[in-house]
Amino acid sequence: MDDRALLDTIRDLIGTEETADDCASFELPDSTILVSSTDMLHETTDFPIGMTEFEKGWMSVAVTLSDIASCGAQPIQVLAAVGLDDPKRLVPFMEGAVSCAKRFGAKIAGGDIDSHREFTVVTTGFGIVDKKFYCRRSGASAGDAVCVTGTPGCAMAGLNGDERYRAHLLTPVPQVEAGQLIARAGASSMMDVSDGLAISLYDMSEASNVGFELDSSRFKLPDVSSGSAMEYYLYGGGDFGLLFCIPPAGLSGLDVKYTVLGNVVSEKGVWCDGKVLEKRGYAHHW
Amino acid sequence: MDDRALLDTIRDLIGTEETADDCASFELPDSTILVSSTDMLHETTDFPIGMTEFEKGWMSVAVTLSDIASCGAQPIQVLAAVGLDDPKRLVPFMEGAVSCAKRFGAKIAGGDIDSHREFTVVTTGFGIVDKKFYCRRSGASAGDAVCVTGTPGCAMAGLNGDERYRAHLLTPVPQVEAGQLIARAGASSMMDVSDGLAISLYDMSEASNVGFELDSSRFKLPDVSSGSAMEYYLYGGGDFGLLFCIPPAGLSGLDVKYTVLGNVVSEKGVWCDGKVLEKRGYAHHW
Repeated sequence: MDDRALLDTIRDLIGTEETADDCASFELPDSTILVSSTDMLHETTDFPIGMTEFEKGWMSVAVTLSDIASCGAQPIQVLAAVGLDDPKRLVPFMEGAVSCAKRFGAKIAGGDIDSHREFTVVTTGFGIVDKKFYCRRSGASAGDAVCVTGTPGCAMAGLNGDERYRAHLLTPVPQVEAGQLIARAGASSMMDVSDGLAISLYDMSEASNVGFELDSSRFKLPDVSSGSAMEYYLYGGGDFGLLFCIPPAGLSGLDVKYTVLGNVVSEKGVWCDGKVLEKRGYAHHW
Repeated sequence: MDDRALLDTIRDLIGTEETADDCASFELPDSTILVSSTDMLHETTDFPIGMTEFEKGWMSVAVTLSDIASCGAQPIQVLAAVGLDDPKRLVPFMEGAVSCAKRFGAKIAGGDIDSHREFTVVTTGFGIVDKKFYCRRSGASAGDAVCVTGTPGCAMAGLNGDERYRAHLLTPVPQVEAGQLIARAGASSMMDVSDGLAISLYDMSEASNVGFELDSSRFKLPDVSSGSAMEYYLYGGGDFGLLFCIPPAGLSGLDVKYTVLGNVVSEKGVWCDGKVLEKRGYAHHW
């Protein structure tokens, strides 16, 4: 069983709406939306060997800010709950966490310190977005362009030992400014591709009840020293690019680096060069 | 080293204000305060043997709602990040979590599902309170009465096998309504006593820069079948009573069950019947 299947088992309990996005939302009195997201990371599954405590702190905050960014929101605060096997890890970890939060205009506003056999961190971030610019996974319409920022696959290339992509893997950059620009340009849907591009396309297809026709000649593949660039691009996790759909007119004047991958169609599914795209990506398994 | 000493090591990095309370705060445009709190609980240290998954879900949400309650705030949303050793635990756990949130007017609005060797949960709650009623650990003034709701020590009695207090231990009740009534009655400071009454008094003394003179003849000790009721009352953790200070006039008409423990004095410290109260309580140790 993987985490997507497991989420299905609590959909009735929690609500379809509540389980549809990486962020929760709450409407504030002034027509803004408070978005929030929480992410658990722990030693054995999320932190590549050799990663410094600073980098772990940076990444722990970055994963949450990436979710906030994908709503088109400005992050404001982050809480960090840290379960420590060794108390000496706290200071360098928090230096990385504070550094990342600050870089993107947010603040570490609190948290919890616990002892734990395995170094385990949960960061929770909040952000604010004008109601009219609030983006979700749902909302894409047939006729929209489907686009991605950055170059998916770089983090996986880094994980496989390509030193040029070490920073992509260990100190990923949440697309906070890009997310807000894309939202303001009129994006109909948005999410990050941290679980991989292909699985994210399927997630968005499901939430928006539309399909995607991709044209692989448009893909800007990463330059990789080993393995398949296409495999990395479609199925590598850990990148913080934003996948978004937008009426084509919205793209003119959008001052963000993006790639148009193809078009949104009304039939649910994901096709690449006319063939069904394999549905797989990063998942937790039991 | 314990978690209070460890928190000191990051006070400069995070900020004195940010590390002073169980809740973080953010001022919203309409003169309300968004408060938030995050808590990590995990199998080996936080869940007594024999506890059901439902009770673990309830408790995980209750600890966070108790922090929200201690600000005088109404909880609105809770996020739950759950690290599971066995995926079958998720549904009954979430049933308990949803049940607790609903009971106190909040909603499980999202979360994260992860695999983990040790069952580990982090709940993060948000609440809203009018700026003029927002309570913190700081703010107590000499001349205030120092009071507590409920009967501290019951959870510890339950932990030590007294079946009458099983519910106090396993399905604790966050004082959400009481917190709001106390705040509106003009409390100058408030916090919950989940780490024990004595250590909470010292925490509040530190934050408010005042002292407390307690009169033990006023204590309403729990009826216990073994051990010392006074020990449980002062040093037992796991109870969700609210410790608060308030100008005595505020107590008239306060429709909450509370005990006046003594008075706030200007000198920092905690005394009981004229003697310095031993400073100890629940803490994480490495």
